[in-house]
Amino acid sequence: MDKVVKIVLAGPRGKMGREAIQMIEKTDQFQLVAVIDRINNGRKLSDLIPEVKTDCQVYTDANECYKETEPDCLLELSVAEAAYEHAIAAIRYGVRPVIGATGLSHGQLTDLEREANSRNIGCIVAPNFAIGAILMMKFAQLAAKHFSDVEIIELHHDEKRDAPSGTALKTAEMIQTVRQERRQGHPEEKEKLHGVRGGDYSGMKIHSVRLPGLVAHQQVMFGSVGETFTIRHDSYNRTSFMAGVKKSLETVIHIDTFVYGLENILE
Amino acid sequence: MDKVVKIVLAGPRGKMGREAIQMIEKTDQFQLVAVIDRINNGRKLSDLIPEVKTDCQVYTDANECYKETEPDCLLELSVAEAAYEHAIAAIRYGVRPVIGATGLSHGQLTDLEREANSRNIGCIVAPNFAIGAILMMKFAQLAAKHFSDVEIIELHHDEKRDAPSGTALKTAEMIQTVRQERRQGHPEEKEKLHGVRGGDYSGMKIHSVRLPGLVAHQQVMFGSVGETFTIRHDSYNRTSFMAGVKKSLETVIHIDTFVYGLENILE
Amino acid sequence: MDKVVKIVLAGPRGKMGREAIQMIEKTDQFQLVAVIDRINNGRKLSDLIPEVKTDCQVYTDANECYKETEPDCLLELSVAEAAYEHAIAAIRYGVRPVIGATGLSHGQLTDLEREANSRNIGCIVAPNFAIGAILMMKFAQLAAKHFSDVEIIELHHDEKRDAPSGTALKTAEMIQTVRQERRQGHPEEKEKLHGVRGGDYSGMKIHSVRLPGLVAHQQVMFGSVGETFTIRHDSYNRTSFMAGVKKSLETVIHIDTFVYGLENILE
Amino acid sequence: MDKVVKIVLAGPRGKMGREAIQMIEKTDQFQLVAVIDRINNGRKLSDLIPEVKTDCQVYTDANECYKETEPDCLLELSVAEAAYEHAIAAIRYGVRPVIGATGLSHGQLTDLEREANSRNIGCIVAPNFAIGAILMMKFAQLAAKHFSDVEIIELHHDEKRDAPSGTALKTAEMIQTVRQERRQGHPEEKEKLHGVRGGDYSGMKIHSVRLPGLVAHQQVMFGSVGETFTIRHDSYNRTSFMAGVKKSLETVIHIDTFVYGLENILE
Repeated sequence: MDKVVKIVLAGPRGKMGREAIQMIEKTDQFQLVAVIDRINNGRKLSDLIPEVKTDCQVYTDANECYKETEPDCLLELSVAEAAYEHAIAAIRYGVRPVIGATGLSHGQLTDLEREANSRNIGCIVAPNFAIGAILMMKFAQLAAKHFSDVEIIELHHDEKRDAPSGTALKTAEMIQTVRQERRQGHPEEKEKLHGVRGGDYSGMKIHSVRLPGLVAHQQVMFGSVGETFTIRHDSYNRTSFMAGVKKSLETVIHIDTFVYGLENILE
Repeated sequence: MDKVVKIVLAGPRGKMGREAIQMIEKTDQFQLVAVIDRINNGRKLSDLIPEVKTDCQVYTDANECYKETEPDCLLELSVAEAAYEHAIAAIRYGVRPVIGATGLSHGQLTDLEREANSRNIGCIVAPNFAIGAILMMKFAQLAAKHFSDVEIIELHHDEKRDAPSGTALKTAEMIQTVRQERRQGHPEEKEKLHGVRGGDYSGMKIHSVRLPGLVAHQQVMFGSVGETFTIRHDSYNRTSFMAGVKKSLETVIHIDTFVYGLENILE
Repeated sequence: MDKVVKIVLAGPRGKMGREAIQMIEKTDQFQLVAVIDRINNGRKLSDLIPEVKTDCQVYTDANECYKETEPDCLLELSVAEAAYEHAIAAIRYGVRPVIGATGLSHGQLTDLEREANSRNIGCIVAPNFAIGAILMMKFAQLAAKHFSDVEIIELHHDEKRDAPSGTALKTAEMIQTVRQERRQGHPEEKEKLHGVRGGDYSGMKIHSVRLPGLVAHQQVMFGSVGETFTIRHDSYNRTSFMAGVKKSLETVIHIDTFVYGLENILE
Repeated sequence: MDKVVKIVLAGPRGKMGREAIQMIEKTDQFQLVAVIDRINNGRKLSDLIPEVKTDCQVYTDANECYKETEPDCLLELSVAEAAYEHAIAAIRYGVRPVIGATGLSHGQLTDLEREANSRNIGCIVAPNFAIGAILMMKFAQLAAKHFSDVEIIELHHDEKRDAPSGTALKTAEMIQTVRQERRQGHPEEKEKLHGVRGGDYSGMKIHSVRLPGLVAHQQVMFGSVGETFTIRHDSYNRTSFMAGVKKSLETVIHIDTFVYGLENILE
């Protein structure tokens, strides 16, 4: 039988944190031994989240937490600045961090990498935990070697303010690394209605659909003589991130270096 | 058994004309009795199109053709100016026209309507014979009464120069007749990449995708709280028009008035 | 300004009931004046559902409720047997019922119809409040007049035990009323793997996909020479029913007869 | 500039052969130097296919053809038995074969492999030239490592007699090599209509849709908590194979071993 993985969670009150607690409770080989919260030092997790099944201690000081609970991993789901401090401390205690925060600076990432690699402590930074989205980008990049033409259609609920989505831009960026720059469509193509041909990214087109009812969806569509090839990801709710969190926790305890991006731990 | 419908075809050498000949040959109750062509008077159809199965006479003069062959219908697939002349003559001979030409002027349409109605002769003008496209537009209009938000995505091969397609514009126009004008999307929505949100038609968005491999496709997507509703038409080749041509021929012999638009003969 | 519609809700503690309370709170011209519950007589709605914004009284006796609160409508979201009793009583008090219960017997429906029609009191029974699903069925029936071939693909989460879904069967049933019975596919078609061609309903094929992640989706796909035509409904969560509930409440106060099925109040 | 690749084509009169001639004519670095045909020895290609642009000689004897025209490659698009003979002879003359025939026996493949490898002559056998289909299968296999549940929906025109398609079976087979056998769907799932849940392949479901209008399409759909991931290939006509033929010809002149399957030359 696998040894139980003892986990400290930072950021227990956020939406991702709450989902993570449920995922840990449902996973036999995972055990939540403590949580780190900006406030509430000394209280119990059940004071913060009444519906929790297995209770544990709340710490405000990360060092104290690691010393007392001797965890295997830190699951870091709080904001960037706190995440950096918690993770650096964790590595020094031999605790392996899985970090979901998105705003880490280049300098902070470099520090984490140096600390983790010099101590042979696994550390995973994953700004995106959605395995489906990661695969979509990876496959899109692979497919782009064989199809010269591609358009991206991303579809989201109409409360989203930014267009295109970050994933759409990242996908275009990844495709562009293997694609020769060229303007797609007919050379004499004309928009009779301004904007219908979408946004241009190095000659590729990106389209953003916004409708109530939609959640988060993306379709990458390649075309070639006589055929089209499509990769699509539909995300229906936040629980979809948990498979990536779980995979990261399972992986971090077996590696001894710094890794950036979930794509690098998926075979 | 149904009586055989005797048909004269104008425009036998065009792409639509050739498809129509095959359709007529395959349809038991249809019989091709003559063709009208700008040139080639007095020759045989098999001189123009060797693979034809049932041969018939080529006429340049429509009046002469109707007098000698006494057809039930004129299937008019040539260009607008000729179409008008052939159809007016047909109605006067009691021959019912089905007209596919797209460039008829308002005055010409009014003339045809008056001639047909005053003589109780059925006459159908159908600028679009694709039943699927017609249904898509009709259903989109019906659905728009129940969903406030809609976006149109049309997808065509990359040899198409105009965007959006005529069908996409027509669909938006039809939806607009039953929809209250409103700007969709988040009020503070921002394009980080110019054009990604598509072309704007009275607050609705239209997106045009162009890729090699594609033929002619359109998707009308409605959204409401918790659900989306989609109507999609995929046209793979020109043979798809023939169901509409056939339906028009079957209908024109039973009606005694002028009808504009295939949508008005589909129940 | 429109007069406020005073509503009594039966079944406030169920999932649909809770959604309905939120919908009523968000709708300016609706006012929740009381709830009917099997238990909890005399308590306040906020005792049952703490997060409620506007409070009201809980009644166990429907007659007493109608007498004291003089509502315009009864929104009946409890189980069939209670629904029948509450609705009959409502009609006698001049209160117009909108009933979502699915298990009403033929006899009960006949009673409701007679009571409502004889008193000129509007009454709507809607076993399915999803406008999108209703439109899909209605349009599928219309499209079936123009396309001889159709297959239905319904896709649901893998906790669903029955296949096909009730909506898929109902759709096939409605299509069959306007379609000539015929076996689709190639006459010599052969299944090399048993079941791949799906379930047979009067010659039409139905396919049921079950995957984790999916919610409730259905695609009705028509084919004809050179083209396909598809109608698709995606339901992402229960809130999608509320548009149908709202439409029913808005309609019931303006009609004076019994109506069965949301499809009959959608134009 | 790249050296011109001199090509001999076997099977010039078949559908694939005719497409290949057009592809070669359009490709600057390719030159058709001769064709091998079962009959017509000594005639010109333009006698067989009048619309050809660059003419060349027809040979019935492969050895004679290679000796006289000194080609770089043999593009073998005839039937299996002839293909084997032509290819073995080609390798002995130092001519690199690209073979599209599907019925080669295990013994024939072994012979070709031994001959090619022992002489360091590149040889590619590709039973499927559709790059999109190959990528779909490859990606499906990769994705199956991350998603436990998958269903395959293949859609073809209704003149196809076999179900499921060969590609659907091959896809299931490839997925199965990386997937743990398990029965998908709810353990107590029940078919109220026999067959709706599709065909079973090691616990995965396959669905075959047949409708007029469709060409050749396949969708591989993965599901996981909160998300779905879909890979789709749409093939609209035979020209889609030509990218794979071209890629094979470009590759075979640079390799010195035997390769089976287009998937092994796509990075």
